[in-house]
Amino acid sequence: MPASTPAADCFLAACRGLPHDRTPVWFMRQAGRSLPEYRAIRGTGSILDAIADPELATEITLQPIRRYGTDAAILYSDIVVPVHAIGFGVDVRPGVGPVVDQPFERAADLDRLRPLDPEADTPYVLETVRSLAAELPVPLIGFAGAPFTVASYLIEGAPSRTYARTKALMLGDPDLWFALLDRLADLAITSLRSQVDAGARALQVFDSWAGALAPPDYERYVLPASRRVFAEVADLDVPRIHFGVGTGEILPLMAAAGADVVGVDWRVPLDEARRRLGPDAVLQGNLDPAACLAPVEAVEAAVADVLRRNGGHPGHVFNLGHGVLPETDPGILGHVADLVHAHRSGD
Amino acid sequence: MPASTPAADCFLAACRGLPHDRTPVWFMRQAGRSLPEYRAIRGTGSILDAIADPELATEITLQPIRRYGTDAAILYSDIVVPVHAIGFGVDVRPGVGPVVDQPFERAADLDRLRPLDPEADTPYVLETVRSLAAELPVPLIGFAGAPFTVASYLIEGAPSRTYARTKALMLGDPDLWFALLDRLADLAITSLRSQVDAGARALQVFDSWAGALAPPDYERYVLPASRRVFAEVADLDVPRIHFGVGTGEILPLMAAAGADVVGVDWRVPLDEARRRLGPDAVLQGNLDPAACLAPVEAVEAAVADVLRRNGGHPGHVFNLGHGVLPETDPGILGHVADLVHAHRSGD
Repeated sequence: MPASTPAADCFLAACRGLPHDRTPVWFMRQAGRSLPEYRAIRGTGSILDAIADPELATEITLQPIRRYGTDAAILYSDIVVPVHAIGFGVDVRPGVGPVVDQPFERAADLDRLRPLDPEADTPYVLETVRSLAAELPVPLIGFAGAPFTVASYLIEGAPSRTYARTKALMLGDPDLWFALLDRLADLAITSLRSQVDAGARALQVFDSWAGALAPPDYERYVLPASRRVFAEVADLDVPRIHFGVGTGEILPLMAAAGADVVGVDWRVPLDEARRRLGPDAVLQGNLDPAACLAPVEAVEAAVADVLRRNGGHPGHVFNLGHGVLPETDPGILGHVADLVHAHRSGD
Repeated sequence: MPASTPAADCFLAACRGLPHDRTPVWFMRQAGRSLPEYRAIRGTGSILDAIADPELATEITLQPIRRYGTDAAILYSDIVVPVHAIGFGVDVRPGVGPVVDQPFERAADLDRLRPLDPEADTPYVLETVRSLAAELPVPLIGFAGAPFTVASYLIEGAPSRTYARTKALMLGDPDLWFALLDRLADLAITSLRSQVDAGARALQVFDSWAGALAPPDYERYVLPASRRVFAEVADLDVPRIHFGVGTGEILPLMAAAGADVVGVDWRVPLDEARRRLGPDAVLQGNLDPAACLAPVEAVEAAVADVLRRNGGHPGHVFNLGHGVLPETDPGILGHVADLVHAHRSGD
């Protein structure tokens, strides 16, 4: 990279661990309920309806870029969009999350998971990506749900705290489990590839709930499918980010899945994450979203602590450790973005 | 200990890391909805009403001992009992959890947290403990909520996934935070001491949600109060157990709080826990409760894995990594208890 990196390229350089001028920052769920301009246009229906409206989804994706000047945009979409689009019977209930009419239970349910044809099944996603690629001053991050996390929604039928049914199927019927994850890996791969073809310049795979698993279970039952997802988008030559919450114990296994960037929640300080993953690990994170509800002095101290623990490593994309909480003051997030930008990479 | 330890003493010996004959086992929430005999007598009201009925609470506590032959009983109670008893205005809503009419917000709310007078405020708890101490063939574990976890209920007003308000108060008003935790530590200490005076032979402190905190925040804002709780019951000379879920990152800090036994959830294999805490650490855990929903062969493999990772260390109390799930088949838990008992300590 040249000594002075164009601002729009800092994010991509950081994802590669290459030198660049300023620490890039974006916020998971930066486009969402915390923004008054989002609430003004979002409407009250299912998020799946909003996602299916390319004009609306484009505008929602752009809102935080205008407000915060973040260094990457993330497509306004949802990890259940592909399974919804192929007719599995999933909806996203406001205030609840993904719900499934007939949860996945048996081998016959595999037939409800046919391959995704992005142009036919999710044309609205591609149209949104194309319009964003034309308009955005920064890279667009496309994304998909990792096989485990999507499987957990399909099996539980609703958000769960215990993932009891998911684990019971995983441990009790490994053949069916692996067949399910194979289908979901295919869906993720097809969706991710189509997003890059349409103009996305980076990818994030959300395995949000993988941290619920014991490490040996993750390694045996989840890692192979996730590894295949990352391998089968490697040729696209865009940075691949891998994220989950509560993943401290499985962090080395998640890194072994092959992403370029490992997302870390706030429980694992960045210096500790590099002790586990190696000194050259490229990390994304990891301010506690709840810390953004504290007074500004406490937020500033927390931001400084994240930057200090990164220790000037070029392989760092600043982010929260999970999504923006709806009650967050956007003014605070703007201040966080400014603080990160004022911090020169390498310091 | 003699070469042949009386069965009733295996639990206490294991808590001290002393040699004994068979690995002791009990299950968090062993007295609860998974048992048909519990559902038959529990009724439908608040758990606080059931707890306030010593005859009923005694019977419920005894049920799993009769059924499973577990090596310890845990008092049928709830961590919000002391704050409820002093009139803070907390209830436990069936299917939801603790809810608070007027959540803790400001310094004036400290006045709602007067000291506990166990004989006057919770006579039913002491009566239950006394009757159990007379009837039980195994030690009774008394318990209390750790200051952080109780504070999270009082501040959030309802169960939370983010602990956003709790963290905002903690980071935003440390003086008030420490004053609150100080009151809650006093309540825990008074309650724990009264339970031992009445006949409890071990104590567990539940900091169930402390794993939501970043380690530096735990160390600064939570550890001092928890340390005081353990210090101020040390003279009672009963084993003290310290438990939370998702605590992998803070495990050494939790151990530093001074308990005799550290509870470990299923995310941290026991061998890894001893790498973090030292080879002589006494551990409780850590079968994934969800694993008990799998077919019996998978359950057996999971039990064997826990025992193998303990490696014959005498300082091991077998347990689940969190509470029994309500949908668990009691027959499976009985089988788990038998498997553990068939395993000789030291193997």
